[in-house]
Amino acid sequence: MSGRIAPPSDEALTALKWAAGAGGWSEDRAEIAPHLVEWRGRWHGRTPLLLKPADTDSVSAIMKTATRHRVAIVPQGGNTGLVGGGVPDESGAEVLLSLKRMRRIRRLDVADRLIIAEAGATLAEVDEAAAEAGLRFPLEISSGGTASIGGAVATNAGGVHVMRFGSMRALVLGLEMVLADGTVVDELRRVRKDNAGLSLTPLIVGSEGTLAIVTAASLALAPRPATCATAWCALARIEDAIALLRRLETAFGMALEAVELVPEFGLKLVCRHIPGTRAPFAQPYPWHLLAEATSPHETASLSVEMEAALALAMEEGLVKDAVIAKNGREREDLWRLRHAMSEAQKKEGPSIKHDIAVPLVELPAFLKAAEEAVKRRLPGARPCPFGHLGDGNLHFNISAPAGADESAGRDFLARWEEVQRIVHDIVATHGGSFAAEHGIGRLKRGELARLANPGRLAAMRAMKRALDPLGILNPGVML
Amino acid sequence: MSGRIAPPSDEALTALKWAAGAGGWSEDRAEIAPHLVEWRGRWHGRTPLLLKPADTDSVSAIMKTATRHRVAIVPQGGNTGLVGGGVPDESGAEVLLSLKRMRRIRRLDVADRLIIAEAGATLAEVDEAAAEAGLRFPLEISSGGTASIGGAVATNAGGVHVMRFGSMRALVLGLEMVLADGTVVDELRRVRKDNAGLSLTPLIVGSEGTLAIVTAASLALAPRPATCATAWCALARIEDAIALLRRLETAFGMALEAVELVPEFGLKLVCRHIPGTRAPFAQPYPWHLLAEATSPHETASLSVEMEAALALAMEEGLVKDAVIAKNGREREDLWRLRHAMSEAQKKEGPSIKHDIAVPLVELPAFLKAAEEAVKRRLPGARPCPFGHLGDGNLHFNISAPAGADESAGRDFLARWEEVQRIVHDIVATHGGSFAAEHGIGRLKRGELARLANPGRLAAMRAMKRALDPLGILNPGVML
Repeated sequence: MSGRIAPPSDEALTALKWAAGAGGWSEDRAEIAPHLVEWRGRWHGRTPLLLKPADTDSVSAIMKTATRHRVAIVPQGGNTGLVGGGVPDESGAEVLLSLKRMRRIRRLDVADRLIIAEAGATLAEVDEAAAEAGLRFPLEISSGGTASIGGAVATNAGGVHVMRFGSMRALVLGLEMVLADGTVVDELRRVRKDNAGLSLTPLIVGSEGTLAIVTAASLALAPRPATCATAWCALARIEDAIALLRRLETAFGMALEAVELVPEFGLKLVCRHIPGTRAPFAQPYPWHLLAEATSPHETASLSVEMEAALALAMEEGLVKDAVIAKNGREREDLWRLRHAMSEAQKKEGPSIKHDIAVPLVELPAFLKAAEEAVKRRLPGARPCPFGHLGDGNLHFNISAPAGADESAGRDFLARWEEVQRIVHDIVATHGGSFAAEHGIGRLKRGELARLANPGRLAAMRAMKRALDPLGILNPGVML
Repeated sequence: MSGRIAPPSDEALTALKWAAGAGGWSEDRAEIAPHLVEWRGRWHGRTPLLLKPADTDSVSAIMKTATRHRVAIVPQGGNTGLVGGGVPDESGAEVLLSLKRMRRIRRLDVADRLIIAEAGATLAEVDEAAAEAGLRFPLEISSGGTASIGGAVATNAGGVHVMRFGSMRALVLGLEMVLADGTVVDELRRVRKDNAGLSLTPLIVGSEGTLAIVTAASLALAPRPATCATAWCALARIEDAIALLRRLETAFGMALEAVELVPEFGLKLVCRHIPGTRAPFAQPYPWHLLAEATSPHETASLSVEMEAALALAMEEGLVKDAVIAKNGREREDLWRLRHAMSEAQKKEGPSIKHDIAVPLVELPAFLKAAEEAVKRRLPGARPCPFGHLGDGNLHFNISAPAGADESAGRDFLARWEEVQRIVHDIVATHGGSFAAEHGIGRLKRGELARLANPGRLAAMRAMKRALDPLGILNPGVML
């Protein structure tokens, strides 16, 4: 939707430097370089200037200037996004705005279980601050050591605890935001309930930097678990995995905080490529489930209940085999089998990735249809659907045929968009989402235009026009 | 913000009737009358026409017509709102749009724990449908038998389970909405995770009918509790209530779903005015806490843990006395003491109400300052702060002096706005919200303009202009 924006004039660049203040900008190629490459190397951008403001007033001054000169601004957090939403395009016309220097923890209210952090703070830094107060920030993604609060807000990040705590939007009590014209909108709430007028916050969460620059967030914290019961289960059918998920929910209620799905093929890749990993069971099983329940106090009953629930499930044939971690190290070993999935798949060779969600009632039929369609189009390709069964969000990744050489790998990846359309169409027929937790960015912009219904697109464009009439915020991303 | 809108022409009214279809409208004064009065009698409106469409297409046709003729439309659900947001004004220029005929349950997916209901369905109807599948719709407000899904969405309704399940926004997976120009926006998701572009849904939740007409909602359901432990605790100080809340959270984790606060004065009013109620303890205590934990499976441990937690708290002097419900009837008796608060206060005489939230760390200081200020301005007035301690949302209501006759009562109520400003200013100095769960409506429109920061107001107006450029949706409400 954004009309192409001209490269900024020298006058505009000078004005932006003044707005960013001393130490607030850089033209050093070496310093800028890492900001221009998406971490998986899929996108390489160019920019005439890196802005790195230290406070909200500077961001406001920058956006006032960008509006006056109609300069395209690309906000960037930890640059761990997966859809190319945080890097400028190749035109060299877009100015990069890094929030990295804004990383203060402004407030931590223990009694209210909330923290107010600036956009550049990492998820890990926020969780560490919470931990000192015996609390935690429950959003857990594998890039949490680098990913920033602002980026997690911009993408409505999910992760392994969404089934219990929700995605980022559910954890954000309110935001401090700077609009395209420099207006500062302060919704940094210290209360969990506030209906004093329209709230811009939930619209900005997930807007991928296209509607406003997030400068700080008020976030809900949770008690830190004192006990946890972690189990790895072997299953014969995907239907059994869904049945076990519901069984565990009934057994543990909201104490159940993660239920992750791993296929046998994925487990094999991990054990093959990741040093120090081994399969929990001697024999192979089609599906594996990693389940974890926690309690905020010390209790032995959690493991006892886990054993009882799984023993019953095994008697009934729902679960084929199961292990429960006896200590922290065993727990980490089990989690590594899940967290290493992406790395293992990368080491196995090229893969085409999908970030989809389908209703659980549709999941078995979706998997059957999608795997058949993919294998028909890409003979020998090896689907590896894994991820967050607890909320129906799977990473339906497809590894190239075994032993594919470099040129075969290139041919395989050349089919990305074609295969993506095939898979996304099947997702749509099963009532699912083709962008569950990674967002649209540059990667799925065409798919959004292709698959979103006209009413939704009209509403999205109305929001964009209302908050960014000049189209200077992250043009080329999402809309 | 809405420029005054002229009364609709006969031509416009005729066109609206055509759009609404056969049986889709009424001019019968008797039928219309109950729709014009806010249930507490605080607002009485007028309207030339009641529209009652049976489906989304009719709502779309109505809004297209309303846009063409620039007719003001006031959407109404169960008409149980507390801020006058669902009744037309006295001008007679606003056309009433009731969603009551749209009450179908369109879908119930047990495996996915979701239900898609039309806007006119009541919360109770949705919960009953869920119950047949062993599930529940966890949003619980006392007007749930009449309040509609559409109204709960429009006000981002809260209630007694927000501490565990969040307000309405957290339970809405997606909405079907009709914009002012008749555009139908379908975000009726069947998955919990979807980041495929900007989502209009979270902005519309809480927009009080000023941005779009909600026609249906996809809602998250939860397992139905099989066991619950309900306790009533007596406390000496508000600080102890907060400490006990955190204690219980650590003991029960997310199994704790309600922690309600009642002051001794409020308990006295209930026992005085509500037949069949009695105080749990022989002697008076300054504060009372109603706490409930639940489990989705049958278990004796919940009550055992509640007893242990409260026994320890009593040993330490944190709790002065406590009772735990031994059966369903005792549980209902305890809950009636809480739910009858409003009715009892009404029977006691006039009262000035506030719907506020403050950070728990500020609550003791807020209560002291607010009670002193109120008593200074209204000698003899009797503050009765009660409500949802679990999320810091209290109904800071003030009963008229004891034995106030009718004219004294009128004088008392004449101070509503003045006292409201005094209380809201104190809320603001303590970092709280002056509209926690009931919204703005007509009641607090002036307070919103007075207390919201300029940046927030600018953002709200930009949203309003973007989605309702003619200002025909619920003019006079909120903005």
